[in-house]
Amino acid sequence: MLDSLEELVGALSKLPTIGRKSAWRLALYLMERPESEVKHFADTVFSVRQKIRRCDVCFNYSENEMCTVCASQARDRSVICVVEKPTDVFTIEKAGRYRGLYHVLGGLLSPLNGITAEKLFIAQLVERLHTNEIKEVIIGLGGSSDAETTGLYLAKILGGKKIKLTRFARGLPAGLELEYVDQLTLTQALNERIDILS
Amino acid sequence: MLDSLEELVGALSKLPTIGRKSAWRLALYLMERPESEVKHFADTVFSVRQKIRRCDVCFNYSENEMCTVCASQARDRSVICVVEKPTDVFTIEKAGRYRGLYHVLGGLLSPLNGITAEKLFIAQLVERLHTNEIKEVIIGLGGSSDAETTGLYLAKILGGKKIKLTRFARGLPAGLELEYVDQLTLTQALNERIDILS
Repeated sequence: MLDSLEELVGALSKLPTIGRKSAWRLALYLMERPESEVKHFADTVFSVRQKIRRCDVCFNYSENEMCTVCASQARDRSVICVVEKPTDVFTIEKAGRYRGLYHVLGGLLSPLNGITAEKLFIAQLVERLHTNEIKEVIIGLGGSSDAETTGLYLAKILGGKKIKLTRFARGLPAGLELEYVDQLTLTQALNERIDILS
Repeated sequence: MLDSLEELVGALSKLPTIGRKSAWRLALYLMERPESEVKHFADTVFSVRQKIRRCDVCFNYSENEMCTVCASQARDRSVICVVEKPTDVFTIEKAGRYRGLYHVLGGLLSPLNGITAEKLFIAQLVERLHTNEIKEVIIGLGGSSDAETTGLYLAKILGGKKIKLTRFARGLPAGLELEYVDQLTLTQALNERIDILS
């Protein structure tokens, strides 16, 4: 009926998690906003996309050749935390306790979905270990089975090098009562229990 | 950490039903798409907003001064269906059986939320009835209490005119088994029952 509105709904419904119904709601919302506001929104979308690239070193998102973490002189350059995607860097940075560098893989190994090691920034990680004074690599991946697979693969190819290889601890999440903790998490928390007197 | 990305997340999370988490997901999705595709998306958003205005007659969305329904010579110009918002026009048009005109109120009366008659296109509806050969006004509002209030208000101000005033039938929705129908709907279906022999 209104081709241009249909076109906008089509464009919006291509976004992840936005179905046709949500797309209609968003489109109608945008039609109700002042033209200047919608222009600003559209400009933001494109200008940010235009500004953002991957850091040449760690493959995190960056506005420059090197991201703010890699470029910072305040970071501990002997530790690299390997994460799946740029949001993971944001998440860890928000916690504010990690002072080392990062390496973003750009995904997780998932042979069934055609994600092989060549499609991730794994070779570039190995390269960084050759050329830098890295003492420790922390595998900072999540708890999914693809994350497990990826962690095991990295352990295999990095295991031969004289570099300390660690991974995030598994155990009880903060603030959750025991009765709400799933059995696998509980088993991991038991297996990786810490001697509180040592 | 990355101001431009934060800016995009902020802009996206202003959209209805998009929280900060969804906004991050959308932003990261957009960062992964080719620049040309994101440019096309942003252009679509703004150009559609720029093209769309309200029809001078019925206040439906339109690309011209008059919407396609109002401009059509094939429509029955003696009937106006009063609806809340432009999507309602799309919904009724999709069903494909209504051949009259529309009038979009631009909302429902909701005194508690400050939506009074002056904020809706009600005066313009009354105006259309003065100047045109309208024989019937169909109140095509939904079943919410604000819709009821608005319908009653319209009945009051239009009741004095020599125009047939109808509203959508209330009753059982198509395809729903009786056991899933709520009690109010069932009561309405009973109250508005039709003589099948007449």
